[in-house]
Amino acid sequence: MTNEIESIPISKMMDEIGKAARVGAAQLALCSGAERNAALLAVAGVIRERSAGILAANQDDMQSATQRGLGAAMLDRLALDDARIEAMATGLEAIAELPDPVGRKIAAWERPNGLHIQRVTVPLGVIGIVYESRPNVTADAAGLCLKSGNAVILRGGSESLRSNKMIYQCLHDGLGQTSVDPAAVQMVQTTDRFAVGYMLSSMVDSIDVLIPRGGKGLVKRVQEEARVPVIGHLDGICHVYVHASADASMAIDVVVNSKMRRTGVCGAAETLLVDRLAASRILPQILSALIDAGCKIIGDENVRALSVQVHPAGEEDWSTEYLDAAISCRIVDDIDHAIEHIGRYGSGHTESIITEDADAAAQFLTRVDSAIVLHNASTQFADGGEFGMGAEIGIATGRIHARGPVGAEQLTTYKYVVRGSGQVRL
Amino acid sequence: MTNEIESIPISKMMDEIGKAARVGAAQLALCSGAERNAALLAVAGVIRERSAGILAANQDDMQSATQRGLGAAMLDRLALDDARIEAMATGLEAIAELPDPVGRKIAAWERPNGLHIQRVTVPLGVIGIVYESRPNVTADAAGLCLKSGNAVILRGGSESLRSNKMIYQCLHDGLGQTSVDPAAVQMVQTTDRFAVGYMLSSMVDSIDVLIPRGGKGLVKRVQEEARVPVIGHLDGICHVYVHASADASMAIDVVVNSKMRRTGVCGAAETLLVDRLAASRILPQILSALIDAGCKIIGDENVRALSVQVHPAGEEDWSTEYLDAAISCRIVDDIDHAIEHIGRYGSGHTESIITEDADAAAQFLTRVDSAIVLHNASTQFADGGEFGMGAEIGIATGRIHARGPVGAEQLTTYKYVVRGSGQVRL
Repeated sequence: MTNEIESIPISKMMDEIGKAARVGAAQLALCSGAERNAALLAVAGVIRERSAGILAANQDDMQSATQRGLGAAMLDRLALDDARIEAMATGLEAIAELPDPVGRKIAAWERPNGLHIQRVTVPLGVIGIVYESRPNVTADAAGLCLKSGNAVILRGGSESLRSNKMIYQCLHDGLGQTSVDPAAVQMVQTTDRFAVGYMLSSMVDSIDVLIPRGGKGLVKRVQEEARVPVIGHLDGICHVYVHASADASMAIDVVVNSKMRRTGVCGAAETLLVDRLAASRILPQILSALIDAGCKIIGDENVRALSVQVHPAGEEDWSTEYLDAAISCRIVDDIDHAIEHIGRYGSGHTESIITEDADAAAQFLTRVDSAIVLHNASTQFADGGEFGMGAEIGIATGRIHARGPVGAEQLTTYKYVVRGSGQVRL
Repeated sequence: MTNEIESIPISKMMDEIGKAARVGAAQLALCSGAERNAALLAVAGVIRERSAGILAANQDDMQSATQRGLGAAMLDRLALDDARIEAMATGLEAIAELPDPVGRKIAAWERPNGLHIQRVTVPLGVIGIVYESRPNVTADAAGLCLKSGNAVILRGGSESLRSNKMIYQCLHDGLGQTSVDPAAVQMVQTTDRFAVGYMLSSMVDSIDVLIPRGGKGLVKRVQEEARVPVIGHLDGICHVYVHASADASMAIDVVVNSKMRRTGVCGAAETLLVDRLAASRILPQILSALIDAGCKIIGDENVRALSVQVHPAGEEDWSTEYLDAAISCRIVDDIDHAIEHIGRYGSGHTESIITEDADAAAQFLTRVDSAIVLHNASTQFADGGEFGMGAEIGIATGRIHARGPVGAEQLTTYKYVVRGSGQVRL
């Protein structure tokens, strides 16, 4: 089947996928919330039934990836097991439990001339999702799109193609048991990178929003080529700023958790800023705790003066997303200096201040212009589930449409419904 | 001064404008609502003081435009007089009266672990506005941006350059009397079209959102070249559908008003769809009323059978925005056919159904996927002022961030402010 599809020129295949998704979107937009939830539950059931088949396909993917020499972190992201497959199914069931994001009346008012105006949420239409490695994104992302009444075009990474195809087949067949047109979920079944470029630049009529989820290469490509509107997910260069009046024990706990709980997530801290006035009191303990936890420290001159185990930082370190057990560390003069550093090197994702000083906290929360700003809490809370929003497709760092966790609610737009009795405009 | 500026390479000039706007945005984001309102009032004052100078510059623009043979409609858009200048000043004062769109808590909740989460509105940052002919947009757009805490880079049409420069100087000098950094308002003082391309494609770091306001040429260029996020304003191919059960007299009034109140606005109806079952009862009267009002009718075979004054419609007429005293007219089989026609040829702007049948109205309002859908009211209500939202920069027909009237509220985004007491993630 792969050969047959790949023998057709990719642009033609993509146009057909786009057209089918548009048809699916039109049908899905008219389904009730109950119908969309039934579709999610049906897909969850099929995923459970076929877990052996998904596992077998995943083992093929793992074997190829191992032969191609993929790193341990990548292999871990790619791997499925019974628990991860069950998590996909329960994830879809949890999405079904969420409140319906479509058809909500966000606002309603009446005009002096008697016109009654409502602002009502509607699906975005067709969402393109370009992602890498983790095959569970196939189910999670499709689930969020279905919940919010959107058709979806999935384009996963080449290393997980076989797993993705099996999961896609579950989605397709699950929808086939329901009143939702299976055309609402489309998958790009080629690993040719031309297909990604085509989605970015040539599907303006068939993709309403593109959501990229991946590494620097993908992000760069999206910035250079995208003509389709994008809900951006850039780097997570997250900062923790330990203020002069920070509680030492809280600072240690929050910094270590922000960096080391999971180092490969976008909400992991990449840079630690410590106020000059807190450096001698708190920083040595933080450094010890990080080193004990297995973290490499890359610091400026002042930090290196505190420990021989600190590696020297270059300018590029302040804008590096390590996604690993490594953190850059700098001593700043004051809160202004910290905020300026974050403004210059940050990626607008998530930043936290540790302080007992309410004024300093208020300043930081107001002046730092990131999607998520925290006071006395770990940056690792940057997550839709932790926010109580349910599943999410990622953390948006762009400025338009949605910022922070992108869940089902963020995958809607709105329209104005105006009811009159023959009003004409003067 | 023009010569001096134009001797610098445009890309360098644009980079400097972008850098200055970023500085202005950072300062403006920290101003209070009272400071931003004071700035709007100061600018209004300076515009009133300098109305003679603005008029003189506008007369120069008008003279050049007349010599270059611009049409009457364009000249009317370009022309300023005392009343229009006063309207700019009062417009800014009205914007100052609007509620502050920045710093609003849209949502707040607490998590079981004690984290307190708020979603708070913040400015978008730097907004680029590319517009044509009407010089009042210079003041209106800058006013909405200032109100919403955004810096703005204005790029008006070449025909209004002298008027725009004078109004820009009023903005600059008005801000100079206040605590708002005049850098928050920037103007591209060259008519070189390269500058527009540069804004679209090369200012990703200095423009957060681009809002194009103009004709087909600009829209096409934006679609082809934009790498900066866009809040789109495309054509307004608006439809009125006269349903089988429409009230005849209401249908006549609403159709004539939708088309003829002002023909050059994006909310003007361009296509009239009449249900087959209502055609003989209502359409002849509608045609007479339109023809009496000076409107050219372009109809399909069935419409032409009703009147010798109907011109033949070709396929391209269904997707033509006349912006003139002309309307295309088609007889449709039923509501499904009407909705299908709108889906195929419409631009997602504004559509109205005229009917006494509540079920038909509900179907139309739900199934038609446009920014504004109306029941028994004129499409000419597609306007921020008529919606009670105050001034607007245009009607967005894109699907992300904002749809319908784009006022001060739509020029904001949000961030999450999270307050904790040392929480770390498990």
